[in-house]
Amino acid sequence: MIELEFDKRNGLVPAIAQDYRSGEVLMLAFMNEEAWRKTLDTGIAHYWSRSRRQLWKKGESSGNIQEVREIRVDCDRDSVLLKVHQVGEAACHTGHRSCFFNLIRDGEVVPDGQIIFDPKDRYGRS
Amino acid sequence: MIELEFDKRNGLVPAIAQDYRSGEVLMLAFMNEEAWRKTLDTGIAHYWSRSRRQLWKKGESSGNIQEVREIRVDCDRDSVLLKVHQVGEAACHTGHRSCFFNLIRDGEVVPDGQIIFDPKDRYGRS
Repeated sequence: MIELEFDKRNGLVPAIAQDYRSGEVLMLAFMNEEAWRKTLDTGIAHYWSRSRRQLWKKGESSGNIQEVREIRVDCDRDSVLLKVHQVGEAACHTGHRSCFFNLIRDGEVVPDGQIIFDPKDRYGRS
Repeated sequence: MIELEFDKRNGLVPAIAQDYRSGEVLMLAFMNEEAWRKTLDTGIAHYWSRSRRQLWKKGESSGNIQEVREIRVDCDRDSVLLKVHQVGEAACHTGHRSCFFNLIRDGEVVPDGQIIFDPKDRYGRS
């Protein structure tokens, strides 16, 4: 297996998911060694959920998986770039296409991103 | 100042630098609160150097600074996306345009990235 520098950061490396066609950055998550191996083996993006402290196959429940089209690692082998096809169009649990929908403008945070679904419809009202 | 979730990960958040025109992902680094504030205040990308354990104005010595054209933060406010103009074309100390020049193909790591300068010329032979 291609080795990454997991030891530098407590066993985790950051992984960027980027739309393989448009180049839009969809999200950033972390991988542990198991998530990295699963991603390589299956061609489907897997991460480590820091909140749930478990392996996280992105989209496992919603069906919005990420099919990996290309994998790159950086010069230090401590960051991963996945070029993906985002099934269902939305990468973000908020219903946005990209998690990076918060634009900084004039010192304020301004919502600025394509909305694909309403999370209230999908996950129910909290 | 716009607050980020620095406390989640020992005071650091990952920051992606992406070419503002082409969408190419150039590098991933980390910011502490000071680097975030400096980036907001100056419009020039600042990071936290984990190896040197100090504030890192990217390109300070080489001149290859990153002029920030757009800043986004993600849904959880624990990751940053900078869209930048990379002065000098190369973001990577190896001389590559992007740090993500290692392509995974058929289980191997294959160099695949635009080379802008020879680091031996710039930093001297080691």
